[in-house]
Amino acid sequence: MNNESLSKLLTEVKAGKLDVSEALKQLRELASKELGYATIDNNRELRTGYPEVIFGQGKTPDQVAGIIRYMLTQDNNILATRVTGEMYEKVREFCPDALYNETARTISIRKKQIPPPPTFIAVITAGTSDLPVAEEAAVTAEIFGNRVERIVDVGVAGIHRLYNKIDLIRQARVNIVVAGMEGALPSVVGGMVDKPVIAVPTSVGYGANFGGLSALLGMLTSCASGTSVVNIDNGFGAGFLASMINRL
Amino acid sequence: MNNESLSKLLTEVKAGKLDVSEALKQLRELASKELGYATIDNNRELRTGYPEVIFGQGKTPDQVAGIIRYMLTQDNNILATRVTGEMYEKVREFCPDALYNETARTISIRKKQIPPPPTFIAVITAGTSDLPVAEEAAVTAEIFGNRVERIVDVGVAGIHRLYNKIDLIRQARVNIVVAGMEGALPSVVGGMVDKPVIAVPTSVGYGANFGGLSALLGMLTSCASGTSVVNIDNGFGAGFLASMINRL
Amino acid sequence: MNNESLSKLLTEVKAGKLDVSEALKQLRELASKELGYATIDNNRELRTGYPEVIFGQGKTPDQVAGIIRYMLTQDNNILATRVTGEMYEKVREFCPDALYNETARTISIRKKQIPPPPTFIAVITAGTSDLPVAEEAAVTAEIFGNRVERIVDVGVAGIHRLYNKIDLIRQARVNIVVAGMEGALPSVVGGMVDKPVIAVPTSVGYGANFGGLSALLGMLTSCASGTSVVNIDNGFGAGFLASMINRL
Amino acid sequence: MNNESLSKLLTEVKAGKLDVSEALKQLRELASKELGYATIDNNRELRTGYPEVIFGQGKTPDQVAGIIRYMLTQDNNILATRVTGEMYEKVREFCPDALYNETARTISIRKKQIPPPPTFIAVITAGTSDLPVAEEAAVTAEIFGNRVERIVDVGVAGIHRLYNKIDLIRQARVNIVVAGMEGALPSVVGGMVDKPVIAVPTSVGYGANFGGLSALLGMLTSCASGTSVVNIDNGFGAGFLASMINRL
Amino acid sequence: MNNESLSKLLTEVKAGKLDVSEALKQLRELASKELGYATIDNNRELRTGYPEVIFGQGKTPDQVAGIIRYMLTQDNNILATRVTGEMYEKVREFCPDALYNETARTISIRKKQIPPPPTFIAVITAGTSDLPVAEEAAVTAEIFGNRVERIVDVGVAGIHRLYNKIDLIRQARVNIVVAGMEGALPSVVGGMVDKPVIAVPTSVGYGANFGGLSALLGMLTSCASGTSVVNIDNGFGAGFLASMINRL
Amino acid sequence: MNNESLSKLLTEVKAGKLDVSEALKQLRELASKELGYATIDNNRELRTGYPEVIFGQGKTPDQVAGIIRYMLTQDNNILATRVTGEMYEKVREFCPDALYNETARTISIRKKQIPPPPTFIAVITAGTSDLPVAEEAAVTAEIFGNRVERIVDVGVAGIHRLYNKIDLIRQARVNIVVAGMEGALPSVVGGMVDKPVIAVPTSVGYGANFGGLSALLGMLTSCASGTSVVNIDNGFGAGFLASMINRL
Amino acid sequence: MNNESLSKLLTEVKAGKLDVSEALKQLRELASKELGYATIDNNRELRTGYPEVIFGQGKTPDQVAGIIRYMLTQDNNILATRVTGEMYEKVREFCPDALYNETARTISIRKKQIPPPPTFIAVITAGTSDLPVAEEAAVTAEIFGNRVERIVDVGVAGIHRLYNKIDLIRQARVNIVVAGMEGALPSVVGGMVDKPVIAVPTSVGYGANFGGLSALLGMLTSCASGTSVVNIDNGFGAGFLASMINRL
Amino acid sequence: MNNESLSKLLTEVKAGKLDVSEALKQLRELASKELGYATIDNNRELRTGYPEVIFGQGKTPDQVAGIIRYMLTQDNNILATRVTGEMYEKVREFCPDALYNETARTISIRKKQIPPPPTFIAVITAGTSDLPVAEEAAVTAEIFGNRVERIVDVGVAGIHRLYNKIDLIRQARVNIVVAGMEGALPSVVGGMVDKPVIAVPTSVGYGANFGGLSALLGMLTSCASGTSVVNIDNGFGAGFLASMINRL
Repeated sequence: MNNESLSKLLTEVKAGKLDVSEALKQLRELASKELGYATIDNNRELRTGYPEVIFGQGKTPDQVAGIIRYMLTQDNNILATRVTGEMYEKVREFCPDALYNETARTISIRKKQIPPPPTFIAVITAGTSDLPVAEEAAVTAEIFGNRVERIVDVGVAGIHRLYNKIDLIRQARVNIVVAGMEGALPSVVGGMVDKPVIAVPTSVGYGANFGGLSALLGMLTSCASGTSVVNIDNGFGAGFLASMINRL
Repeated sequence: MNNESLSKLLTEVKAGKLDVSEALKQLRELASKELGYATIDNNRELRTGYPEVIFGQGKTPDQVAGIIRYMLTQDNNILATRVTGEMYEKVREFCPDALYNETARTISIRKKQIPPPPTFIAVITAGTSDLPVAEEAAVTAEIFGNRVERIVDVGVAGIHRLYNKIDLIRQARVNIVVAGMEGALPSVVGGMVDKPVIAVPTSVGYGANFGGLSALLGMLTSCASGTSVVNIDNGFGAGFLASMINRL
Repeated sequence: MNNESLSKLLTEVKAGKLDVSEALKQLRELASKELGYATIDNNRELRTGYPEVIFGQGKTPDQVAGIIRYMLTQDNNILATRVTGEMYEKVREFCPDALYNETARTISIRKKQIPPPPTFIAVITAGTSDLPVAEEAAVTAEIFGNRVERIVDVGVAGIHRLYNKIDLIRQARVNIVVAGMEGALPSVVGGMVDKPVIAVPTSVGYGANFGGLSALLGMLTSCASGTSVVNIDNGFGAGFLASMINRL
Repeated sequence: MNNESLSKLLTEVKAGKLDVSEALKQLRELASKELGYATIDNNRELRTGYPEVIFGQGKTPDQVAGIIRYMLTQDNNILATRVTGEMYEKVREFCPDALYNETARTISIRKKQIPPPPTFIAVITAGTSDLPVAEEAAVTAEIFGNRVERIVDVGVAGIHRLYNKIDLIRQARVNIVVAGMEGALPSVVGGMVDKPVIAVPTSVGYGANFGGLSALLGMLTSCASGTSVVNIDNGFGAGFLASMINRL
Repeated sequence: MNNESLSKLLTEVKAGKLDVSEALKQLRELASKELGYATIDNNRELRTGYPEVIFGQGKTPDQVAGIIRYMLTQDNNILATRVTGEMYEKVREFCPDALYNETARTISIRKKQIPPPPTFIAVITAGTSDLPVAEEAAVTAEIFGNRVERIVDVGVAGIHRLYNKIDLIRQARVNIVVAGMEGALPSVVGGMVDKPVIAVPTSVGYGANFGGLSALLGMLTSCASGTSVVNIDNGFGAGFLASMINRL
Repeated sequence: MNNESLSKLLTEVKAGKLDVSEALKQLRELASKELGYATIDNNRELRTGYPEVIFGQGKTPDQVAGIIRYMLTQDNNILATRVTGEMYEKVREFCPDALYNETARTISIRKKQIPPPPTFIAVITAGTSDLPVAEEAAVTAEIFGNRVERIVDVGVAGIHRLYNKIDLIRQARVNIVVAGMEGALPSVVGGMVDKPVIAVPTSVGYGANFGGLSALLGMLTSCASGTSVVNIDNGFGAGFLASMINRL
Repeated sequence: MNNESLSKLLTEVKAGKLDVSEALKQLRELASKELGYATIDNNRELRTGYPEVIFGQGKTPDQVAGIIRYMLTQDNNILATRVTGEMYEKVREFCPDALYNETARTISIRKKQIPPPPTFIAVITAGTSDLPVAEEAAVTAEIFGNRVERIVDVGVAGIHRLYNKIDLIRQARVNIVVAGMEGALPSVVGGMVDKPVIAVPTSVGYGANFGGLSALLGMLTSCASGTSVVNIDNGFGAGFLASMINRL
Repeated sequence: MNNESLSKLLTEVKAGKLDVSEALKQLRELASKELGYATIDNNRELRTGYPEVIFGQGKTPDQVAGIIRYMLTQDNNILATRVTGEMYEKVREFCPDALYNETARTISIRKKQIPPPPTFIAVITAGTSDLPVAEEAAVTAEIFGNRVERIVDVGVAGIHRLYNKIDLIRQARVNIVVAGMEGALPSVVGGMVDKPVIAVPTSVGYGANFGGLSALLGMLTSCASGTSVVNIDNGFGAGFLASMINRL
């Protein structure tokens, strides 16, 4: 609720056009929709420029389908992450246009075209096993209206593979770097570009990787400036933030 | 065993009404019942105002059913938490009145009505995925004789959803706030009310959530006063404590 | 800002008694005071029933003194925790009534008497070394208008010391139990009373105590119902919450 | 290889009764048997007073059966821990006398009676869910020639259940105390007896129990003297050590 | 070394203008300067748009002074972080224009004016104790040519203090949010704006804060999109990244 | 309070020799002495066979001296651990017989000779740096009436040093093994003897030793049977338990 | 890309034999091959002396087969680790010569014989459960052209089993020591040999082993010099490094 | 004690040249020297090819001096690590030839020249703050008879600084790579050379570096083959192992 809209409402109240109790009710109802198991944040797009995204993990297929069914009544693109095939089956019943990306574990429904800016986002992965997280990032960036370039399997153990792509990487407006194990790739990329690097640690690995902790700590303590980190395996968060920066 | 009952017993012994060895035996037998795999605490209600509650996890269905069968010989309401459907099947065979709440994972048997106080307990959840823990808290508070108001999916990422409920929350005598991930909701609620807040971290989430650790640490270090924390996913503990406070 | 005051302000605006831009300004200015290095929360007492408390750690003596000097212009009792002797010297210069409790590391200034309720709070410590944290809890509870009973050095290694005090403990409306090392005392107290137990882990100890972690985990996983936990060494938080419950 | 046997061998070598190369070979062969996947420690009983025990976890059923088959050629009682039903089936084929304890997850084969000392070992469990670990301890102590008294479900949340058993506990020469969650029971028992207490943390629990860590830290930092700790869930280690102490 | 400059060099070599061995040497020497204890990265500005910054911690005052003395021979603004007063004394001897910010622990030397873009960066702190880290972020952003707005002490325990500043915050192109303890402030800010939020956990606090771990985990698991995290206490990293985004 | 004494008291009450209220008071007063900052456990020797021991850490010199002054009125040997020179100075003023062991950081006052059993305790240290902890164990065992043999600096990196002492080690009735870093020595000793091994991890070391954690985990997971572990640096606990076993 | 080959290329460019744009392309294409989901490092053997090895975990069977199919077009021996039976089935379809080692979880394809040096590598395991990791190490060392001696189940709990093998161990040029639980074996071996010891912690165990952490910390803090550590369960890494040292 | 010397001794015993009890004594006395607080391992050089090295930390200056004084009676080079200036003063009194390296914190006494092999060891540091650990490694390698090349401050944030040194690095027989923070440098070096890389994590850094944990985990999970890791800050261990490999 920003200053402007608050002023407008107060002005209407002052002018007697709006009843006090009615004004109170309007303020409440505009903002969210209760489904019993979920309270949907209707004015998130107004507030943050982006519609609410459904996080599928921990929800039942019926809950995910129910939320999507409600959101279809509105005019936004819809994205659900961490979904299962079973969830998709539920959704496809009433929305045949829904797309399911098995690698990224996403459902996306495109209700309007968002014109992308001329710049693009690079999504760089250290290894083949990091692909699902990278794909979640790419799909997220794309549905929010961005062009994405994917660069795969260029980890530091064979760093010349990265150098072959350096021109493409340097042209990106923002880089997402996805890596597990020691998570060293963002440090190296960050040292070579003059654009923001969003580092995504993955839980891929074994042993002292401890579910992504080694990559997370490595990225947080990176000596390369211009780098920040999102949660382990949080491809969505990286794609969302990259979109926000790319569209500034 | 409080002072009063100890005095009474000593007085009877002094008056010769009670044999010394008999007195010793009475002290022992009154207090608990051995089932081989369990020693039931009979005077817990006397001592703490609440009957013993069965924690199902780690017990076999036969053990859970056996303990409930014994407890039915007494006059208390019965609550079992962390139960499975299989446990419920065993119990239903000899106790058709038993209620099974699948979300909360509880069996409850109501043998007497406990009149609730005029005040109520608010159970607030940050996200849909936190519902099972919140429901365990609510069911617990209800069986111990309390009115409960449920407020769902009002996490801090869309904080106006919380403000829409603020009047209801402020009327509660005690608030239970259930949240996973960063566990920030209790801090915000705690900063807005003048009543105790019981924070329940959940293991819902992924990555650096580390099985509820992020929410737990967030809640423990909360800057809002009037907040205390129970174990991760411990809906029962929160509901029990809230009941204790609401019925003071 | 509750519903009531929002309605009143809207009504005044509607009646033309209050200009829209003035209404906006009022809403802002009432609520807080900026000191450059701090933004004091003026209506916290209105909102939560308790004035803001100063956390001394990490602030300079001048900052602590500056905040207290401002707060003296208002009509509330003042409490500063985690203060040093140096901070106290700065405060005493302009406020000779300030009291410094060296064990509890608190400065308190009593500007009005708060009549205590008939019930009391018990502050129980497991060992002599836990006294500073327990004293912080007791001082906090006292300045917010509560009677406190202190019970010291009754840890579980000699549990009959606790039993000697059991009648006093059972009469308390709420118990604060302060313990380091294995943190077992709250479990035992919680199993004997029918009132809330607030457990405070302390960082007292060595070895696998890991700065209070052993006590914290012990208390969180306590099998005794009716127990909740505050942060390690957080005597203030426990005293505050106990006051809130005692004054319900 | 103690001093005595080394002297004897040297004496035989000196007397020319034993060839140097033969002496070397004897020293090697006496001590162990190679099975390809395992090197069995033949003189462990000689050296430590106890035969080698088979740890089943991480071995295949064929490996467990192969080791037991070899050990049957010797004259010791045989104990295998952490076994599965499948392992037992393999063993029963060639050794019908083998006993399988499903709760304790052990196979035991009694080839000779070991006369127990007059004293006994108490195995005390905090909760029903701790029974498997406690039973592993009890079975271990029994096969090594000890009388065991089992005391179940006497956790600190209802501490009078423990007091009802206090005379039995005080008569034991050594106490094994098995507990999960906050692991407070050994502290309480340790404060009441003048005999060694072996504390066994279990991984039973949830939330901040972190796979037994809370109980482990609680027991390690216990304020009761005379207490030591074995690994999480290590019923075998506790039973073995208790036997060693009981038979001193 | 980008494609362009490599082509140019190859072209010169081809044209015979540049000797092969000379070409090799040029490639090496242009790029860095060895001081014995440090190897200064001369073409970092070329490569990343920003000159190298000196991290004072772990270096001796003489090393810091030596590096700055060398850098003065070049035409960039100079920033040293985590410096001590002693380091500053050494630098002031040969560079009286050096500025020392005691709160931020920085030395800055401005050799050229960088015209700031019309947009600005907001630096928001949860508490007074977080000021040093916030100031490091602000000083960093300023020396790299940005306008900064500072908003202090608006933590979630009195969230209306934040709302009073919401218009200013919403006008910023990028927000840096600095918080210790539960680290909840970035979640709340992130839920209210449509611009990137850079979260900086601080080690301010005590108990289960564990040196900033609680704030770090809270920020990483934040449910608000558009948020990313830098290392604990890494004000420099946040200021640098914010500058990069603000100047895109 | 054992069964016997409870019977006796009940019998006196029955016989009218003892008033009920007097009986209650006696039960209380016999058991402990309150000093304000400490509640001394008077019947610990009765109950556990050992008098209470003073843990100096976290107490002020005056508190330590006050407790010792009170204990001198009773007929037990006195031991204080983790004391400082300053504490000793306070004690020496009123008790010139007090002995201060600077390495072990103990004060001991011998008021009666306890005849040692014929067997002895071996205290084995892995390295020179482990001596303070080992000495605390030895001093503790000695004051409780045991003969101690000290074996120093025989860590596994030069394991023949241990073998030179193997005969002495094998004659001990119980072995205390003190080690930091990888904590491997108890495993090796435990594999060579048929007597209990009490492992004491020390916080000596650096890097991945993490304050004794590496040694603690190593000892807990030791594959040698007959081994149990006490807290990091807990020489007292090991000496106490060893005494208990040696005097069985 | 070493100096030599860079000179050669520059020389050809200078001589006009090689076009500038062609030179650039050659540099890129020689080095790696893109498969979409993987970027194969073609000149790793040139650069590091060893061909790229496929890490199967986290890849789909089709991806593993696809990578192997491409590598068959080149002249190197092929090794894939952490593979499943399903992956092997895919590979066998087009490459019947592929060998599958079920214990080691490897696929190996030998396209050329590498003559082994006269020296050998010893692979020593503490327990039977450590065999899979040890076998991965052995298979790796063998395919890279080394003779391997396997020594199994010689953990420190029965240390004479190790001594029986000491001559063989002392003849090895490098020792790989594989152990779980307390991970003490490398310390003991390291103290007896004058050759490098590569320690491999395994995740075998339970309780305070915490997924291999206890063995890892034990090995890192080992007091025996000449020892270094690879990741938990990283048999491949140990075999590879041992090969590198053995073939120096 | 290898096979050869055991045979010789047995042969002498057989020939009657050596008494049995004398043989036993010889075996014991040859091997170590007891100083009371230390047991010096005399035949470590025989056994491992290297004399014992003194670890100064945790020892008193008198103990360090006493051990060195004894070692001077033997014919080996002497190295003490983690020493203080005070220790050096004690040693210089009786050994003016002792050298003190303040950066490396070592005392070294060279009693004989060890001819270095033609190959050399590269010691590479990521940052200036890692120099003390790197210097400890270099000094260790040098006293054991190796040529060392030092390459400083070539961390991955400016990776071309490393490439300038790549020819030197590729000529080394073994590389020691010392790095704090994210510890990425060994991964990059390991991907470029065909020689062993010994990675040394340092505790240099702040925040999520957690005393070297981030660098340690990063190095352990490194994707570059041929890399192994020593303990945090363990320059000595790296130098020792590098010497062992270089002199193979």
